[in-house]
Amino acid sequence: MLVQEILKERAGAAVVTVPPGSTVAEAVEVLSARRIGAVIVSRDGKRIAGILSERDVVRELGRRGPDCLNDPVESMMTSAIQGCAREDSTEEVLQRMTDGRFRHMPVMEGDVMVGLISIGDVVKARLAHLAMEKDALEGMIKGF
Amino acid sequence: MLVQEILKERAGAAVVTVPPGSTVAEAVEVLSARRIGAVIVSRDGKRIAGILSERDVVRELGRRGPDCLNDPVESMMTSAIQGCAREDSTEEVLQRMTDGRFRHMPVMEGDVMVGLISIGDVVKARLAHLAMEKDALEGMIKGF
Repeated sequence: MLVQEILKERAGAAVVTVPPGSTVAEAVEVLSARRIGAVIVSRDGKRIAGILSERDVVRELGRRGPDCLNDPVESMMTSAIQGCAREDSTEEVLQRMTDGRFRHMPVMEGDVMVGLISIGDVVKARLAHLAMEKDALEGMIKGF
Repeated sequence: MLVQEILKERAGAAVVTVPPGSTVAEAVEVLSARRIGAVIVSRDGKRIAGILSERDVVRELGRRGPDCLNDPVESMMTSAIQGCAREDSTEEVLQRMTDGRFRHMPVMEGDVMVGLISIGDVVKARLAHLAMEKDALEGMIKGF
């Protein structure tokens, strides 16, 4: 099963981005209003500067208090981001997300972002796929 | 596969709690320092008053700004919590977490909390179990 198939189910869902100079408070408003767990930081909506998650915000809020909300997003975002390709398998992507402990991964075509998938999307796809394979194998055994 | 088996792997991991009267800022410090996504609100560490997640904090922060950090935890926590029992199947629990869109579920014995499991724990267990079942079925087919 490929990343491609997850993207298809989200067809038309634009990736939410904020510019690197917006404040953390502005990014938090976006996370809250759009009911999402992370936002991509990008100047043009295509090339990625970083990602800011609700986890990043709460971690820093706990360390430094509300002052951090006035900082520019680019000072708090994670900029070393792993991306995947449409042709990657969901199994491999899930392993990378679990190992690296991140919940979101941009889907890239060269250096242009074409989508964003969450660990929830990938898990849902993997569980459905494994259950289907199991049913097919059980069917084969019963058919013998 | 049962919830019991997930709890076993986390043996000794105490559930982190805060009292209902602590401020949201104090709870955020706990989330940040303990590197956890949600904290159980409880007077005695056994009976549950509610749960506060990093998502709850970011949502409210986006709506109201940093003033919400001074509120008592009990005004922001989710108090209608679904729990599970040690004897519940991981399959059923994962379905309930996915349907209800929550990432944490306390494990109860009567009205006393005996553990806390995250959707990450359950997913890991389910994926391992399904992969094992698939391998066993493939083994049976090859053995025919």
